[in-house]
Amino acid sequence: MSEGVEWALHSCLTLSWAEPGQAVTATKLAAFYDLPAAYLNKQLQALVRAEILTSTSGPRGGFRLARDLKQITLMDVVAAIEGPQDAFRCQGILRAAPGGDPETDYLKTCVVSQAMARAELAWRRELAAQTLADIRDTVESRFPRTPESTRHRLTNLRRP
Amino acid sequence: MSEGVEWALHSCLTLSWAEPGQAVTATKLAAFYDLPAAYLNKQLQALVRAEILTSTSGPRGGFRLARDLKQITLMDVVAAIEGPQDAFRCQGILRAAPGGDPETDYLKTCVVSQAMARAELAWRRELAAQTLADIRDTVESRFPRTPESTRHRLTNLRRP
Repeated sequence: MSEGVEWALHSCLTLSWAEPGQAVTATKLAAFYDLPAAYLNKQLQALVRAEILTSTSGPRGGFRLARDLKQITLMDVVAAIEGPQDAFRCQGILRAAPGGDPETDYLKTCVVSQAMARAELAWRRELAAQTLADIRDTVESRFPRTPESTRHRLTNLRRP
Repeated sequence: MSEGVEWALHSCLTLSWAEPGQAVTATKLAAFYDLPAAYLNKQLQALVRAEILTSTSGPRGGFRLARDLKQITLMDVVAAIEGPQDAFRCQGILRAAPGGDPETDYLKTCVVSQAMARAELAWRRELAAQTLADIRDTVESRFPRTPESTRHRLTNLRRP
C-alpha cells in the first residue's frame, strides 16, 4: 500500500480540525506534516475525485471536507487512493495449466483466488466498519489538545 | 501484493499432487503454468527459506513439500513471499506535525495506524485460518480429475 493512504487519512483528520469553512492548500498541509507538496496534492486530488474533499481555486482556495467524517470510512479513503482492486490480483495462471481454459474467469472458479478474496473481504469489512469520525473521537479523547493545536498551526502557517 | 503469491500457492498445490517423493524443478513447474522460470525459482527459494518446501540438487533434484498441507496456511505462504510487514506501513508522519516527538513509536500511539493495523489483523486471521489442505480438498471435490491430470502432466513434461 502506498504511503499516500497514510497522508490522505491524516489530511482528512487535519481538515476536520481547521476553522469552520477554512480551505487549506496542499502546500500548507504538506508543511504541516513535512511532506512533498506535489505528491500530497496528487493524493488530495484523488480524494476530490472520490468526493471526500472539495477543492476551490483562487486566493482563499484550497481543500475542504466534502462531507461529515461520519460519512467517510477508512475503506473510502483506501479505495480513493489505491483504487478498488484487490491487493491479491489473480492473474488466472490456471489458464495455461493442464485443462485450463482461456475463456474461464478464474476469479470466479479458482479455489486459491476465492480463498484470497475471502481474506480481503475480512480486511475491507474492517475498514468499512471504521469511520474517520471514530478515529477523530478516539484522538480527541486521548489527545485533547490536538484540535486546538492543529487549528492554531493551520491558521499561523504562512499561507504559501 | 506480488504475483509471486499466486505462483507460490499454486506451486504448493501442484507439488502435493506429484508422485510421492517426486522432486519437481522450477523449470518444470514454470512450464506447467507457462511462467518465467527464473522468477518462479526466486519464489520457490523463498518458500524453502520459510521451510514450506525443501530443495535438492542433482539429476533427480528439485522442490518437494517440506510438510503436510495441513501445516501450511495461506498466511505462511503470503509471509514467505511478501515478508512479515503490514501492507499499510506507518511512516509516523505525526513526528513532524505540531506536538510531534521524534522519539515516539507512532505504530503504538497513532490512532490511524492502529485502526489500519486492526484491519490487517482481520486479513491475517482469515489467511491463517485457511490451510492449503482446505484448498486442496475443495479443489479435489469440485474438480476430481485435477490430482491425476496434474500428476500425469508432471511425469510427462520433458525433464528440463
